[in-house]
Amino acid sequence: MIKVSVLYPNEEGKKFDMDYYTGKHMPLVHSRMDSMGLLRTEVEKGVSGADPSAPAPFVAIGVLYFNTVEEVHEAFKTHGREVMGDIPNYTDISPQIQISEIV
Amino acid sequence: MIKVSVLYPNEEGKKFDMDYYTGKHMPLVHSRMDSMGLLRTEVEKGVSGADPSAPAPFVAIGVLYFNTVEEVHEAFKTHGREVMGDIPNYTDISPQIQISEIV
Repeated sequence: MIKVSVLYPNEEGKKFDMDYYTGKHMPLVHSRMDSMGLLRTEVEKGVSGADPSAPAPFVAIGVLYFNTVEEVHEAFKTHGREVMGDIPNYTDISPQIQISEIV
Repeated sequence: MIKVSVLYPNEEGKKFDMDYYTGKHMPLVHSRMDSMGLLRTEVEKGVSGADPSAPAPFVAIGVLYFNTVEEVHEAFKTHGREVMGDIPNYTDISPQIQISEIV
């Protein structure tokens, strides 16, 4: 199983519109990538660091599950430009992208 | 649902023993925290960034699921020192810790 994490660092003075992200962005991701092997997604909202009073390292994390790395590459080659182009509509943070294998 | 992510940044010249991590460390986490509300764990091995030729931002990510933030704090207050004390046995990377709510 392959997990794509899109991590939005918690940076001072940056904005992140969680309503747009869950209500518009993730549905866009599904509408384009479900037919290309996207199995399911998960949205995380940062709560804190290990210490409850420390800020979360990431304000939000979006997770996409696929069966294979090839499906991920194909999905992003085909729809990555449109999906990434939607990012400025909800945040001015540049996300980190991690492709992982679940072991 | 609460997700605790322990993220190990992919830093030049650092070591990470995945066999120890999956075979010894995660079983230790389960043996101490299952009775304190730990529902399940997931281990991710970094494959790449968005670009298949770019290195993964994180060499590994460990994920712990709980029902509530209070359970997380109680579990780490009780067993955090022992569990974190095991880290030098598999890596010299200082992990980032993120507590998130799944929305």
